[in-house]
Amino acid sequence: MQKRIYNFSAGPAVLPEDVLKEAQKNLFALPGLGMSILEISHRSKTFDKIITEAKADLKSLLSINDDYELLFLQGGASLQFSMVPLNLMPPKNKADYIVTGSWSKKAVKEAKRVGTVNIAATTEGENFKRIPKQEELKLDPEASYVHFTSNNTIHGTEWYKEPEVGNIPLVCDASSDILHKKIDVSKYAFIYAGAQKNMGPSGVTFIIIRKNMVERSSDSLHTMLNYKIHVENNSLYNTPTTFGIYIIGLVAKWLKKLGGLDAMYRLNKEKADLLYKCIDESGGYYKGHAEKESRSLMNITFNLASEDLEKKLIAEATAAGFDGLKGHRSVGGLRASIYNAFPQKGVEDLVSFMKAFQKKNG
Amino acid sequence: MQKRIYNFSAGPAVLPEDVLKEAQKNLFALPGLGMSILEISHRSKTFDKIITEAKADLKSLLSINDDYELLFLQGGASLQFSMVPLNLMPPKNKADYIVTGSWSKKAVKEAKRVGTVNIAATTEGENFKRIPKQEELKLDPEASYVHFTSNNTIHGTEWYKEPEVGNIPLVCDASSDILHKKIDVSKYAFIYAGAQKNMGPSGVTFIIIRKNMVERSSDSLHTMLNYKIHVENNSLYNTPTTFGIYIIGLVAKWLKKLGGLDAMYRLNKEKADLLYKCIDESGGYYKGHAEKESRSLMNITFNLASEDLEKKLIAEATAAGFDGLKGHRSVGGLRASIYNAFPQKGVEDLVSFMKAFQKKNG
Repeated sequence: MQKRIYNFSAGPAVLPEDVLKEAQKNLFALPGLGMSILEISHRSKTFDKIITEAKADLKSLLSINDDYELLFLQGGASLQFSMVPLNLMPPKNKADYIVTGSWSKKAVKEAKRVGTVNIAATTEGENFKRIPKQEELKLDPEASYVHFTSNNTIHGTEWYKEPEVGNIPLVCDASSDILHKKIDVSKYAFIYAGAQKNMGPSGVTFIIIRKNMVERSSDSLHTMLNYKIHVENNSLYNTPTTFGIYIIGLVAKWLKKLGGLDAMYRLNKEKADLLYKCIDESGGYYKGHAEKESRSLMNITFNLASEDLEKKLIAEATAAGFDGLKGHRSVGGLRASIYNAFPQKGVEDLVSFMKAFQKKNG
Repeated sequence: MQKRIYNFSAGPAVLPEDVLKEAQKNLFALPGLGMSILEISHRSKTFDKIITEAKADLKSLLSINDDYELLFLQGGASLQFSMVPLNLMPPKNKADYIVTGSWSKKAVKEAKRVGTVNIAATTEGENFKRIPKQEELKLDPEASYVHFTSNNTIHGTEWYKEPEVGNIPLVCDASSDILHKKIDVSKYAFIYAGAQKNMGPSGVTFIIIRKNMVERSSDSLHTMLNYKIHVENNSLYNTPTTFGIYIIGLVAKWLKKLGGLDAMYRLNKEKADLLYKCIDESGGYYKGHAEKESRSLMNITFNLASEDLEKKLIAEATAAGFDGLKGHRSVGGLRASIYNAFPQKGVEDLVSFMKAFQKKNG
């Protein structure tokens, strides 16, 4: 068994070791099949079972009812920035966007190619340190939908509760916190997530779409950009990323075995609390980027007094087996991404390391 | 080591056993890295080395010069059916399409959403049994490009030599025969291929684009649909299918070790000849679908006297460890897909099986 280190990458990110072991065991040939998962037709009985079970397990984990369809597409959240407005903005061609970070801004950029974007709220003036409060939202009752980003990977903020939007369909980019806790899916019209943080490897986009939203997709849309086509074909209009869907299925089974999303949330909360406590009790040596009431459980962003000190910490941490702690270039500092699969022991060890570093360099 | 069977799937399809073994060995953690290929950032040094080497090896295998850029995108050939006309059809908004099968037709359907499509030739009236002759092509000298499908997976036909199109840029969907032999890339303006036949697992689209074609991409295009963006960002504008690119890199190294594409072609020719010889010498018991001068080396399509007999053969073949021989529903009969990684022994064994079947059921 090869040695593994602590991987704080923001995505693609750490996966459960049990999932990696299972995938490794069967990569040459699936048991009793004589072919690798990499080699089988997406229209085979074996793959049908894989995708059907993955969907059923995800529906069960998130308590999704039959008003919704689940899709596995390609192109990441970035392609959804275009597909969402192309499909869901007509016929009124206007939508509300709540801007809480770089990814929301990218979503806005593509939506503007399709129609009118109303910025319902933005915290850009405060370097995206917080999530806007409900009373700050300026919603247009005529909007085709309201779009928000549930967790902001780069700035390390998170919506603890989705915005209240009345009868306007709620659309969410949940790429970096999908499956980290239970959410009430019935409040949403559309959820999308790149798989490469909490679900599996890169190359799959997971989508939850309320069936009545599909009616908005015009026949004039390019086939591969049309949700209606993908729903009618159960994600198999063309060849999907079969291996990625297989791994997502294994991750869903791992989550079920763990006790589901409430159990997952408790573990995530414990991990994040440990790290935030270390920051808060450092007497200002470590400074969290996000405001306390907006802190992400997935991406913990913080700074030291100087860039030089930050570089020193990152270099020493990397040498000690803590990989991927450098913050995104737009925020600087450090970022510890501790998604579902990140082990508690890794957070404990990082906290010890940070305390020792402060003692030596305080 | 798990037992493997003969996999004649049209795609996703058989991969080299050496590639599967290497990927399996390192799936839990890449040597010396402590993280799985499934978990590493697409912006890490490790992945940079993987994508850089994959591109260099593919450039070397196909003797691609520096006038071209290589891309690894998502969405399969199906998304290229839209991206090609969206990027390359303006400003004249007309293009020539040579229609040689179901996939060409799908490409035409999307191109018509963008501009005027001139069907330069089609063999649909003959159930796509052959590739049109050069003198049959009715090319428009004003066309933005000429599009053709180099190998037709469903009907089992193949262009032995690309069409002569003068100065009009030549665009090719090479999904099912890329890397099966040397081609003169300098004759092409744009080549695209879903990876899941000769290159790797599904979820990656390989693209060769002549640099001067990039200028056609308008800034008004949606970001993810814009070739210029992907070229400028070396396929890393967003997170690509990292694992798929890793496997493609391993396949390229396997091809180089084998002796390159001329060696690969000799093996492919030998395999296809064996199977076609069996068909031709069966006294009409097995009837090839494609005309002899258009026969594909990748997908061998044939029929028996009745559907019942075809079903019997498929059932007995499957039981004997020959998987995936059922023809596509639009052609019926049988199809043996024998891509690069399909072993010669498998073809020999299938031929023996077919001869024995004929003797028993003749």
